[in-house]
Amino acid sequence: MTIITTTIHDIYQARPHVYAHLRPTPLYPYQGLSDLVGGRVFLKHENHQPVGAFKVRGGLNLVAHLTEEQKKGGLFTASTGNHGQSIAFAARAHGVKATIAVPEGANPGKVAAMRGLGAEVIFHGPDFDSARQWIAEVADERGGTFVGPTDEPLIHGVGTYGLEIMEERPEVDVIIVPVGAGSGVCGTAIAAKTINPKIRIIGVQSAQAPTQYQSWAQGRPVEAEMKTIAEGLATRISFANTQAIMKKYLDDFVLVEDSAIEEAVRLLLIHSHNLVEEAGAAPLAAALTLGHVLRGKNIVLVVSGGNISIERLTTIVGG
Amino acid sequence: MTIITTTIHDIYQARPHVYAHLRPTPLYPYQGLSDLVGGRVFLKHENHQPVGAFKVRGGLNLVAHLTEEQKKGGLFTASTGNHGQSIAFAARAHGVKATIAVPEGANPGKVAAMRGLGAEVIFHGPDFDSARQWIAEVADERGGTFVGPTDEPLIHGVGTYGLEIMEERPEVDVIIVPVGAGSGVCGTAIAAKTINPKIRIIGVQSAQAPTQYQSWAQGRPVEAEMKTIAEGLATRISFANTQAIMKKYLDDFVLVEDSAIEEAVRLLLIHSHNLVEEAGAAPLAAALTLGHVLRGKNIVLVVSGGNISIERLTTIVGG
Repeated sequence: MTIITTTIHDIYQARPHVYAHLRPTPLYPYQGLSDLVGGRVFLKHENHQPVGAFKVRGGLNLVAHLTEEQKKGGLFTASTGNHGQSIAFAARAHGVKATIAVPEGANPGKVAAMRGLGAEVIFHGPDFDSARQWIAEVADERGGTFVGPTDEPLIHGVGTYGLEIMEERPEVDVIIVPVGAGSGVCGTAIAAKTINPKIRIIGVQSAQAPTQYQSWAQGRPVEAEMKTIAEGLATRISFANTQAIMKKYLDDFVLVEDSAIEEAVRLLLIHSHNLVEEAGAAPLAAALTLGHVLRGKNIVLVVSGGNISIERLTTIVGG
Repeated sequence: MTIITTTIHDIYQARPHVYAHLRPTPLYPYQGLSDLVGGRVFLKHENHQPVGAFKVRGGLNLVAHLTEEQKKGGLFTASTGNHGQSIAFAARAHGVKATIAVPEGANPGKVAAMRGLGAEVIFHGPDFDSARQWIAEVADERGGTFVGPTDEPLIHGVGTYGLEIMEERPEVDVIIVPVGAGSGVCGTAIAAKTINPKIRIIGVQSAQAPTQYQSWAQGRPVEAEMKTIAEGLATRISFANTQAIMKKYLDDFVLVEDSAIEEAVRLLLIHSHNLVEEAGAAPLAAALTLGHVLRGKNIVLVVSGGNISIERLTTIVGG
C-alpha cells in the first residue's frame, strides 16, 4: 500500500516558490456557462499561466527544492507537451540546465517553445515511453536529476491553485479537475478537502484513455487502451502515488467522450472567449453530463491549459 | 484648442479603485512572435480581464468617482461591445444601476453578457449613433449620468495598464496600442511617456476605418468611411480630447488592412494560444509591417481584448 505523505502544509510551503515567479490566476464566473450547466460556473484560468498550463507551478516548486549539487547536474525529463515547457521555464528561472527528450516526430511548435525557454531538446525513439526510459538513463549517467510526471514536489506546487480557489471563493461546492498523471487533481483535492471536507472533488478523464479511471474504480493498476485526442489526458499507465491520493480524496470520477470534449472546447470559445486545450475543456464536458447533481451549486471547472494547435482548433470550429 | 488635463497623477489616483476589483494582467514574452517580428515581443494580456477587455479598468474608476446622488441616478450609455460590458461590470461592483442602449439587431451574445452582469439593455434605433443620442436624452430626463466613450475618468482608469507595463518591464522600447475612441492609447501614452520620454508609443487603426488616423495626421477632425470588421476600431468620428493627447504623445500612427488583422488573430492563436479579438490583434499586424524599426527592440503589443465571436473565428481559422 502506498503511503500518502503530502499534506496541505507542503502546499503552503510551495507557495513562496511559486509566487516568486507567478501570480495567482483568475477565477471568473461566466453567465453563459452557468446557464448551460444549471449552477454557478467559475473557470479557474490556468490557461493564463506563462507557458499556458498549470504545471509550471509544480516545476517551479521542484526546482526550488533542488540542492546546489542537483542544480549543477541539471534536470532531465521527457515530454511531448506542457510538462516539458514547465520544466524548461522553471529551470531557466533558477539558472538550471534542462534536457528534454521527445519522441521522433514530436510537434515542432512544442519543440520550438521548449528551445525558446532555453532547454536542450533531444529526439529519441518512436514514442514517449522510449524517450522517457532513455532520458532517465542519460540523467543517471550524467549525474543529473530525472523528473517524473508525479514527483511529490510537483503535486505540492500545483496544489497552490487549489488553495487560490478555496481562499477566493470559500462558497465553492464542487471542483471538477482533469486527470492526466494526476498531479493537478491530487494537489487540488488535498488543499480543498483539508479546508472544507464537504466540498466535492470530481476527476475527469477521456473514455478513450480510461486507465486512471479504471485503476481508481477497481482499486488496482489497470492498463487500458489510449487513443484520446486530449494530449493532457493521454496516460497509458496509472501512478501509485496519485492513485492513493485519488482513492482517499476523490468523490467521483467520470469519463467523457472525446467528441464531448471537442464540443466543450467550442462552448468555452463561445461563452468565455478563452482558447482551451482538450484536457482543460474536459471538466465542462463532465459538468454537462452530471445534470441535477450540480443544480444550484457553485462549481469550479479547472481549465488546466490552453495549448491546443491551430490544426486541432480548425477541426473543432471549422467542422 | 483642447486643453489636456490628464496627467500620470490621475492614473495613480485611479489605481486603488481599479485594484479594488481587478488584478494586474500578465505581460508575457513569446518566442514565436519575437522570431516573426525581429525584436523581443511581449503581450499585455488585457484579454485576461473579466469581461475580456481593458475597458473594465476605466469603468471601475468612473463609477468610483460618482457622487452618492449620481450613483442613485444610475449610469446610462450606449454600446455594441466591450464598453457596455465594462460599464455593467463596474456598476454592479458598486451597486449602481446601468442602463445600456443597443441598436436593433445587436449581437445577442453581447446583450446576454450585459444582462448577465445585471444591466438593463434597451434596443433602440437602427444604428449605434441613434442609440447613443437617444440614451443621452433618457439619462437627462431621468436625472442619470450619461457615459461617453472618452470621458476622462475612463482614460485615467485604463492608463493603469500602462503603469503596469512600465513597472514590470522598464526596459520596454516600444508600445503598440490599438486606437478606437482612443482612451487606451491615451492612458498608455501619458503613463509611459511621463516615466520614460524616450519610449515610442505607436497607435494602430484599420485602413478600413481611418478617421482617428486621418484626424491625427491632418491635425483637424476628419470624417472617413468606416467598414472595418474590427469592432473595437470601428469609430466613425474623432474625439477632441483623445486627439489632443495623441497629437502630443504619439510617436507614430499606422494603418493596417483588415486582412492583416485577421492574419494576426491567426498568428496569436498559433504562437500565444490566446483568443484575441480583431482590435487586440491589430498591434501585431502593425509590428509585422514596421520591419527594421523594431529590430532588436523590446516591444509590447497591447492585446486590448478577446471578445471575438465564434462565427468570426471560424471564418478566420477555417478560411
